Amino acid sequence: MSGFSLGNLKYVFEPKSVAVIGASRDPKAWGHVILKNIISYGFEGKVYPVNPKADSLLGLKCYPDVRVIPGDVDLAVIAVPAKIVPYVMEACVEKGVKAAIIITAGFSEVGPEGEKLEKEVVRIARKGGIRFVGPNCMGIFVAKSKLNAAFTAIAPKPGRIAFLSQSGAFAGTMLYWATMRDIGFSAAISVGNQADLELSDYLMYLADDETTKVTIMYIEGVRDGRKFMKALEYYTSKKPLIVMKLGYTSSGARAARSHTAAMAGRDEIYNAVFRKYGVIRVYEFDDMFNIALAFANLPLPKGDRVGVISSGGGWSVESSDALESLGLKLPPLPSHIIKELDKILPPFWNRRNPVDLVATVEPEPYKTAVELLMKDDSFDIIMLIGYGNFGRISNLPFIIPREDTVAKEIAELVRKYKKPLVAVNVFGKDFSNVRVFEENGVPVYLSIQKAAKVVRALVNYAQYLRSLQYKKPQV
Amino acid sequence: MSGFSLGNLKYVFEPKSVAVIGASRDPKAWGHVILKNIISYGFEGKVYPVNPKADSLLGLKCYPDVRVIPGDVDLAVIAVPAKIVPYVMEACVEKGVKAAIIITAGFSEVGPEGEKLEKEVVRIARKGGIRFVGPNCMGIFVAKSKLNAAFTAIAPKPGRIAFLSQSGAFAGTMLYWATMRDIGFSAAISVGNQADLELSDYLMYLADDETTKVTIMYIEGVRDGRKFMKALEYYTSKKPLIVMKLGYTSSGARAARSHTAAMAGRDEIYNAVFRKYGVIRVYEFDDMFNIALAFANLPLPKGDRVGVISSGGGWSVESSDALESLGLKLPPLPSHIIKELDKILPPFWNRRNPVDLVATVEPEPYKTAVELLMKDDSFDIIMLIGYGNFGRISNLPFIIPREDTVAKEIAELVRKYKKPLVAVNVFGKDFSNVRVFEENGVPVYLSIQKAAKVVRALVNYAQYLRSLQYKKPQV
Repeated sequence: MSGFSLGNLKYVFEPKSVAVIGASRDPKAWGHVILKNIISYGFEGKVYPVNPKADSLLGLKCYPDVRVIPGDVDLAVIAVPAKIVPYVMEACVEKGVKAAIIITAGFSEVGPEGEKLEKEVVRIARKGGIRFVGPNCMGIFVAKSKLNAAFTAIAPKPGRIAFLSQSGAFAGTMLYWATMRDIGFSAAISVGNQADLELSDYLMYLADDETTKVTIMYIEGVRDGRKFMKALEYYTSKKPLIVMKLGYTSSGARAARSHTAAMAGRDEIYNAVFRKYGVIRVYEFDDMFNIALAFANLPLPKGDRVGVISSGGGWSVESSDALESLGLKLPPLPSHIIKELDKILPPFWNRRNPVDLVATVEPEPYKTAVELLMKDDSFDIIMLIGYGNFGRISNLPFIIPREDTVAKEIAELVRKYKKPLVAVNVFGKDFSNVRVFEENGVPVYLSIQKAAKVVRALVNYAQYLRSLQYKKPQV
Repeated sequence: MSGFSLGNLKYVFEPKSVAVIGASRDPKAWGHVILKNIISYGFEGKVYPVNPKADSLLGLKCYPDVRVIPGDVDLAVIAVPAKIVPYVMEACVEKGVKAAIIITAGFSEVGPEGEKLEKEVVRIARKGGIRFVGPNCMGIFVAKSKLNAAFTAIAPKPGRIAFLSQSGAFAGTMLYWATMRDIGFSAAISVGNQADLELSDYLMYLADDETTKVTIMYIEGVRDGRKFMKALEYYTSKKPLIVMKLGYTSSGARAARSHTAAMAGRDEIYNAVFRKYGVIRVYEFDDMFNIALAFANLPLPKGDRVGVISSGGGWSVESSDALESLGLKLPPLPSHIIKELDKILPPFWNRRNPVDLVATVEPEPYKTAVELLMKDDSFDIIMLIGYGNFGRISNLPFIIPREDTVAKEIAELVRKYKKPLVAVNVFGKDFSNVRVFEENGVPVYLSIQKAAKVVRALVNYAQYLRSLQYKKPQV
């Protein structure tokens, strides 16, 4: 693993026992919310609240000090005032704690004093072999361990996307946003000041985590560039990584400095590194999730040739523009497909790619067209636009049940032919067939341009993986 | 008016009487849906169904021929088979009809035969001075005339945005989409093949229409470039115009040719023309509406200097990047504002633009910060990010009513100081304060990047209007 020593890192993700140090009775205190979140999410290991002023908290026996807890403590969540953190860490070392999460703020992000305090905490932790998250973070969520040790007002759903965030507030907002949209996570980590564990360490762990299919990452800057590149190289050889790297303008870089003390660095260097290691860079937060959902659900495309099926001529023009302007190809429609579609479409259909099904409000011809394009070697990926709207927008309620049924059948074609398909519906979650698509692994996007970015990302990462194959020594 | 002869065009928008020729009993027929839409939207003039095979339709007396209608007919909506359209137009001329909408398809868009038929219809109409919309269109909606003479499944809401679309299907989908989001229209016109009335004509009318504050336009190509430029010059001297011009790649241009027979033209020429006349070009449909809502509701900014107030450091970095990368300015925070905010914020607040209010979950400091930036001459426009989320995402329900109240007070500051403010809330319509903002004229956007595009559009159009002032001869 390229010289990485992850040590006790795994106890962050897979603890059998958790102590919450600074657990509190005050429902607004972080130490209360996190303890409550751990309990209510159903963590199956031992949970030990630590608070010298309480006998019990939220129904659990409370301990005055981590050292007097009877059993082993794999993970300590620390939410005590900053000045006390070194003493708590010392106690954790004596207890033999394996890993910690320091929620507390007031370290390197507030200036030289805090920086000194942070270094002291690192020194103590290293002495005892404790790896830790933070300080100055919102905590972590790990689906496979049923561990929600985070300051969130919503319980994240389990899923196949891992999420690393350098901004705690951003992480909290995004978790809430994604959870409201039924997007699940394998893990979510607010990395805070990265005094000990860094983005690179988490990536090394996630690369081999079987519950994670794709990782999204919000960052403002990276300190150890060499280590980061090694981690990227290892990680992206196994899984796709989507990065939102901010601070790419001079105003943004200044704001980043005052936010996470991150040195944003020269943006062209980040771009070069990301390109080299097949990292997908995005500039808008919804693109992170859009692209992650595609990687979490779809097979990878074998090339960059897109077959488009749309429900109107405007969409056909818009998708041609959107795909071509991202460098994707729209091959002509093979004559045998034209012949097949001639059988079911009125004589004036457009006979081109994009296939324009404007003449029919019925759902079945869409499935026929999708299957013809899936079967054909001319196309590596399918984009389906405006399917399943007619029941509502043309006021034909009697076809709505069929729109739902055929959506399921179209989704099954993705598995049958192992070819990716992305759908576009500007009405979003409002129509039932959109839920049918998503429950059956076909991501649905709110605009053609958003979907085109997803296609580009899938194609790029698939190309990257193929380029690694060519580089492998031939035996 | 630059040599434009709009003739009877006004009867398209302001008819006192409408005949629906081809009115039908069949609830799926266009002639039925349009008649029903006209009646149910409450058109206050006379409505005459025309159908030789019926005595009455939807409770109205039916006439066998437009010529036997007893009163005047200002506008005829024609939904009969293509071959019959010339005869119907001849009858309209004899009757003295002033304007028409030809819904029927099967004209120039289907080839030389249809083109011949279309020319014949134009010839007859011109003879009688009839101006007409279409053919091959979805109809029109005019709020001030309570006229919904369109093939829609949803009743559009009245508003201040006019909408011109070269694609009927796109117009229908967008009307439905916008109406579901409470976006209203002054007028919506599916222009069809533009055999007689062209985009340029509609723009000339809308320039002087008091109910229209801003126009959005979906086009694939323009035929008479000189006339179009004249119309743009006149229109944009009065009101902002937002254009989604597709067919800007070679695939897109090919698709446009097969869709609306539009010659997409060289894209750099369109860009030059749009720039010259202060037209705002967009590439994603939601940007059309985002920008239109801002123009419909907000005062214009006096310059390009943006003051940002955010609820977290991540948003501050993201907004700095988004605004600067669009060429907008983020001036430093004046020291008197820092002093004022020192009084109400904890000592570690960031003291910069973007103002980061992460330390407070209370809504009132946001209002204070907005008012300080509104009052100050350093800023031309305010962006407010992440306001009003804490009640939900930090699980503090008791502050939700205050979040709503203060949202209303913030919206009132826009009117008081006549300075525009755009808000960003990634949760969209889910939170009640978002509705409060929008009901009080502050548009709320789903992402910082989307809001930054709106700021850029407001600034650009305001700059364009100022440049016209400088050009005016000094007396």
